[in-house]
Amino acid sequence: MRLSARMSNVHRSYIREILKVTQNPEIISFAGGLPSPDHFPAEVFARAAAEVLADSGPQALQYSITEGHPPLREFISRRYKEKWGLDIPAEEILITTGSQQGLDLMAKVMLDVGDAVIIERPGYLGAIQAFSLFGANFLTADLGPRGVDLAQLARRLKDRPKIFYAVPSFQNPSGATYDADTRRQVARLIEQSDTILLEDNPYGELRFKGQDVPPIRAFLDGSHMALMGSFSKIASPGLRIGWITTGPELMHKLVTAKQASDLHTSIFAQSVLYRFLETNDLDAHIAVIKKTYGQRRDLMVDAIGRYFPEEVRHTEPEGGMFLWCELPGGVGAQEVFAKAIERKVAFVPGLPFFVDGTDNAFRLNFSNSTPERIEEGIKRLGTCLKEAFASPCRAA
Amino acid sequence: MRLSARMSNVHRSYIREILKVTQNPEIISFAGGLPSPDHFPAEVFARAAAEVLADSGPQALQYSITEGHPPLREFISRRYKEKWGLDIPAEEILITTGSQQGLDLMAKVMLDVGDAVIIERPGYLGAIQAFSLFGANFLTADLGPRGVDLAQLARRLKDRPKIFYAVPSFQNPSGATYDADTRRQVARLIEQSDTILLEDNPYGELRFKGQDVPPIRAFLDGSHMALMGSFSKIASPGLRIGWITTGPELMHKLVTAKQASDLHTSIFAQSVLYRFLETNDLDAHIAVIKKTYGQRRDLMVDAIGRYFPEEVRHTEPEGGMFLWCELPGGVGAQEVFAKAIERKVAFVPGLPFFVDGTDNAFRLNFSNSTPERIEEGIKRLGTCLKEAFASPCRAA
Repeated sequence: MRLSARMSNVHRSYIREILKVTQNPEIISFAGGLPSPDHFPAEVFARAAAEVLADSGPQALQYSITEGHPPLREFISRRYKEKWGLDIPAEEILITTGSQQGLDLMAKVMLDVGDAVIIERPGYLGAIQAFSLFGANFLTADLGPRGVDLAQLARRLKDRPKIFYAVPSFQNPSGATYDADTRRQVARLIEQSDTILLEDNPYGELRFKGQDVPPIRAFLDGSHMALMGSFSKIASPGLRIGWITTGPELMHKLVTAKQASDLHTSIFAQSVLYRFLETNDLDAHIAVIKKTYGQRRDLMVDAIGRYFPEEVRHTEPEGGMFLWCELPGGVGAQEVFAKAIERKVAFVPGLPFFVDGTDNAFRLNFSNSTPERIEEGIKRLGTCLKEAFASPCRAA
Repeated sequence: MRLSARMSNVHRSYIREILKVTQNPEIISFAGGLPSPDHFPAEVFARAAAEVLADSGPQALQYSITEGHPPLREFISRRYKEKWGLDIPAEEILITTGSQQGLDLMAKVMLDVGDAVIIERPGYLGAIQAFSLFGANFLTADLGPRGVDLAQLARRLKDRPKIFYAVPSFQNPSGATYDADTRRQVARLIEQSDTILLEDNPYGELRFKGQDVPPIRAFLDGSHMALMGSFSKIASPGLRIGWITTGPELMHKLVTAKQASDLHTSIFAQSVLYRFLETNDLDAHIAVIKKTYGQRRDLMVDAIGRYFPEEVRHTEPEGGMFLWCELPGGVGAQEVFAKAIERKVAFVPGLPFFVDGTDNAFRLNFSNSTPERIEEGIKRLGTCLKEAFASPCRAA
């Protein structure tokens, strides 16, 4: 089989392989990145689907325009205005088949083989996959408690990378969030560069602690950046509906690339989603999700305090779905993972979130486990960690 | 803006620009490639959506597997067996976001910049777009009344192209169909080459005249080819659900590429479609579509006979949605198009279906116009053609 060179750059998702192991319902899994299905508004969607098909069945089932369902784009535009005071016209919003497609399209229109891309360290593995397929040369900038390391970012920008990819709110995998000052400074650095900021904001609406901070887009013009959003975490991931917004020049190219990729995102799914948004109180729905996730996050942080060895450092996310743990020197997360599976508890070892083979960290998901399973799972994991730390093979 | 080199290879769809012109409802348009919305089963889909959300709402709204909804893949596998006696296991079927994504994924996993791809002449412009984005070097093989020109194909295969892309049944744009013998010979030529056949079969079920012929896949092993299908023309294009089947080695790569492209196709749309297929008689539904399209095709062929100048040659398709007209020397389709718009009738000039700038042909769609509009539209078009032929500027 004569394949393209790009296929040698990419491996099937490590997480995917892990999720197979964790399908056994006896295993308490903190590995997936799944929203809690308890909050999917199935009945409301059923009503929305019935109304859409009765009122405009032929349009919802026919071919549609590449840019996306106009009223859905208007909704997103209005929401940016209402929540953040941002003026983003509907014409500058492209509906994508999940935000993963936004990553694919940005890579497609911007990257030639070997082009540099800055990612956060640790970084979102879906982005690493998408950019790898287009031959990206990854540079990294460390994430800290206030966000990306600005001095490192400034140095990396000197190499004129094409893209800086950032998840400034409740990042996957770390749960870290950039504070307002870091956001402003990132905007200034990008403005002075010819690098495009790709801001990915799938979790931004899920803050359950601390003060809201606007997206970096509030400090930076659309011609210097693209901003992605998603309905996966606030409505349903199964619909596969996200969006990307940027200035007209890049938007024109993204639309062309999207047309060649899948013509358009399911107009049936877009129409049903829009009917749901139009006839329901999205903020009230998000408030319910935030309450549950906030409680689960508190339970997990509390249980970690009781069961994990002190040497394990962890983030204390103010929103989102993930928490990140760092192991002291000499203990590998894959080694802990093997022990954890034996005790029927799972997480994602840090490896796929690094482009340099680092293995001293792991990701825990708290959104998709009941309180009982969080308590029991963290307890089991604490035991595994203590065993790993006590292992005679451990480096001094 | 520093874009990727690939973006200079591709232009926004010519058809798309034409469709904008033809949105005026006064214009009788044979330009679009739309199925007739009269046959979209909106009520049945509403019931299917209600049932899916009531029975398995959480699963239909959650993240799902990249390969696609297992029962939908089993349905496709069974249908290949029942209709054509083909043994294609569900594991070798990947659900795609429309067949357009199948084209994108095949290009992604197989093409490096400059790699040769054989397309039919004229060829499907969605494929030309998708392959252009990955830097394909196009070779062509002419389509005739019995299918692709086998001598040309054999010569082109000597250049070891990576892919031969073919639409053997009721091709878009020409309406041409390969006969059984041509299919067998294509299979033999491909078997002797190291080129992968990409057989695209979106219209295969829409035969309203003549004898059924099986896909080339019936004569060629899955390790030498990939076969794409779609629910767009037999159920609804707005769902964006197609599929691709190939041998395990290439399938593994396609799944990896799909994961990086959009994780998976809307599981909500897949679940609703599967419920529709499970609880309704698809063959009865297709019979209704075929009856309408067959009548419209007959009307169009008849009207062409009465209104077009004799010098215009046209295909007489036995299925599908399109008919192809060739102009005598010296008359350009774009010139006729300009006249046609003045008389409020539209079609697609041949240009985007050729990679060599040919402009002596045009495509007519017959599936999406009422009998009255077909009669009136072909009459107007006949007048435009006669005017163009009489033009003093016409080359001798």
